[in-house]
Amino acid sequence: MIDAKRFERNFNAISEFGALKGGGLTRLAFSKEDLEARKFLINLIEKNGFKLKIDNVGNIYAIYDEGCEADAKPVCVGSHIDSVPNGGFYDGTLGVMAGLEALTAIKEAGIKLKRPLWLINFSCEESSRFKTATIGSKIISGKLGLQRLHELKDEDGISLFEAMSAAGFKPQNLDEAILKENSLHAYLELHIEQGPVLERSAISVGVVSGIAAPIRFEITIHGKADHSGATPMNMRSDALLAASHIIIAANEFAKNKKTAVATVGYVHAKPGVLNVVPGEARLGVDLRDIDKASLNELNLDIRNFVAWLLSYDLNFSYEIRELSSDEPVKLSEHAINLLEDEAKKLGIKTLTLPSGAGHDAMNLTKLAKSVGMLFIPCVDGISHNTKEAINFDDAVFATKILTNALIRLSNEE
Amino acid sequence: MIDAKRFERNFNAISEFGALKGGGLTRLAFSKEDLEARKFLINLIEKNGFKLKIDNVGNIYAIYDEGCEADAKPVCVGSHIDSVPNGGFYDGTLGVMAGLEALTAIKEAGIKLKRPLWLINFSCEESSRFKTATIGSKIISGKLGLQRLHELKDEDGISLFEAMSAAGFKPQNLDEAILKENSLHAYLELHIEQGPVLERSAISVGVVSGIAAPIRFEITIHGKADHSGATPMNMRSDALLAASHIIIAANEFAKNKKTAVATVGYVHAKPGVLNVVPGEARLGVDLRDIDKASLNELNLDIRNFVAWLLSYDLNFSYEIRELSSDEPVKLSEHAINLLEDEAKKLGIKTLTLPSGAGHDAMNLTKLAKSVGMLFIPCVDGISHNTKEAINFDDAVFATKILTNALIRLSNEE
Repeated sequence: MIDAKRFERNFNAISEFGALKGGGLTRLAFSKEDLEARKFLINLIEKNGFKLKIDNVGNIYAIYDEGCEADAKPVCVGSHIDSVPNGGFYDGTLGVMAGLEALTAIKEAGIKLKRPLWLINFSCEESSRFKTATIGSKIISGKLGLQRLHELKDEDGISLFEAMSAAGFKPQNLDEAILKENSLHAYLELHIEQGPVLERSAISVGVVSGIAAPIRFEITIHGKADHSGATPMNMRSDALLAASHIIIAANEFAKNKKTAVATVGYVHAKPGVLNVVPGEARLGVDLRDIDKASLNELNLDIRNFVAWLLSYDLNFSYEIRELSSDEPVKLSEHAINLLEDEAKKLGIKTLTLPSGAGHDAMNLTKLAKSVGMLFIPCVDGISHNTKEAINFDDAVFATKILTNALIRLSNEE
Repeated sequence: MIDAKRFERNFNAISEFGALKGGGLTRLAFSKEDLEARKFLINLIEKNGFKLKIDNVGNIYAIYDEGCEADAKPVCVGSHIDSVPNGGFYDGTLGVMAGLEALTAIKEAGIKLKRPLWLINFSCEESSRFKTATIGSKIISGKLGLQRLHELKDEDGISLFEAMSAAGFKPQNLDEAILKENSLHAYLELHIEQGPVLERSAISVGVVSGIAAPIRFEITIHGKADHSGATPMNMRSDALLAASHIIIAANEFAKNKKTAVATVGYVHAKPGVLNVVPGEARLGVDLRDIDKASLNELNLDIRNFVAWLLSYDLNFSYEIRELSSDEPVKLSEHAINLLEDEAKKLGIKTLTLPSGAGHDAMNLTKLAKSVGMLFIPCVDGISHNTKEAINFDDAVFATKILTNALIRLSNEE
């Protein structure tokens, strides 16, 4: 029913926005590139005859509700088109374009649905710019309020509120963007796996069992800035050296767990020049596990290590700024069974697997009873990298399952 | 003979340029703040009746040559007014203002000298901006040519050539700024120690025996950028984690030597965000020792460690960019003896000590037979830090020695 060529053509067209010379793209939330890609998406939604709604924080809705029953709770499909810096084409954007292809195919086929069908492109899913992920879906599910928009700032000091305003949205009216609890019937999301499991199993489509949401914090270490040439080794309080011990320890602690991962993505030394012993170092820590108890243990291990390391020397002090602490989420049995069933009908083999990465879907569990996700493999498991690649046939298989699942959910009581 | 109040008043006035709210200053080479401070210095030089010369790379000369013998080689005193980011008031600037006070006092007293007396404010002594130190004095001594001005770039990609041009100088005519080998009779420099030795010994003035010039290089590690949530610990090639091992090893190697120091002042991770395993890390290494053999050993130890660490895993590669490799320098016996003798005449106790930091004086050894340096203590040995502080009486003691030494050198055959 879907048009694989149209799907791929549209996907390739939106991939141009923010594309880099050597492959991949940079399309940070609310950047010029993001706004251009949004404009392209909006044009396509309107061209294909869907109702368009853009809420006050920039979430874009395409609505197909011809002939639906009055007051029926909608069925949604969603994802995001913003990216990390030097990211790939597929993370997020594939899910939006798959959702649009599903809606377009359903409309084209003249299929009557009991429930309205919504496609949602969520604002600012990536944490790269404002150090907090899935912002658009957090807002519509009432998990992120107006005050946080002022508090969250990018590296240039621009607040999320300012970035949204500059992009032409009205974040001061954030309240109007919030959806009522249980106001949706179902939510589905298609995404690349961003890990190596499906590819290694030679399976085209994964059905996601749960999402390992991250605990994130930033540690600022205060040591003592000194001249690099004239300060003997035994008289230094080198904040970057202390940070290095923390980076190694965080990795070791995570290695000793079963499913946990720990990542330090950056460390900023101050003043950050060759001839000064760093007096300050600020590092960002990201911890994940689908096992909540193990995640909490890892979190504690690292904080205890930091306290031990930096209390040892009176010349050091530190503080920890909490960035986010989401709970692992289980996806609905109903959605999982329905997706597996639709795959089986199409003769497509699936594998059920957890998601190490966070996704908008985890916030939607507050709004919809049935929330499900489909994964497709990505080459070498590489993501958040310009080398991100897929076999487009896998995307077509998954979009077929997605389309049939959306129809079925939209006709459910 | 010198006017301590005028000296301190002028010093405090120039300290305003680039001053920070909480104390200290940021006056990067060729920045707005540096150019304003230069203007202040130039005004003072002209007001006090000295001849002014500014060469094509921005070195500022104040010349006192009334009644001197024709063709007599000049005696110089010099230092710099540029600073590290978030640096102190005294590093460099104290030497320039002490030199100006010495010249002013000599002129005021109507003392006739056989040799001309020059004060030189050297451009860009700090390596903070262009990762190479003592640029102005390297240029006049023929150690840094036009091509390097194009190659050396700051973090914004602005070349040293561009920065000099934008500041109104003519770096294309760099050749005219070079002085002939042995064209100067003597060079003296007054500086804060930037280490803890003098303060611990409760001695006001140090006479410098030699200068430990740095070996500097930048290591770029290439690993693999991956999604922080979906990439298991055992499948990562985290460049920042590798960098952390190198930082710790460099510190350990230096601790095991007698007089060496090793500093990693920064590490830039790429893409440098919370949700991506760093695929690249670039770190700056600064090694110093007054013992040349020990310095070379330390250098080799670290490079061998890097090779061992990163050859161990096929997913890593790296390259090393050499930034500078200066040789330790011994200062002249004649200058050391003369400075100690002048101190004794004034009843000021001195200590002879090596300099861990590099200074313009090390380049001047190519131009002048007698090169000497005076140190004064700084509080807690802290430098390259907004908390840099001195007892101004020490600066006055050292400037008295400096003035008398300049007179004596200027009357030598």
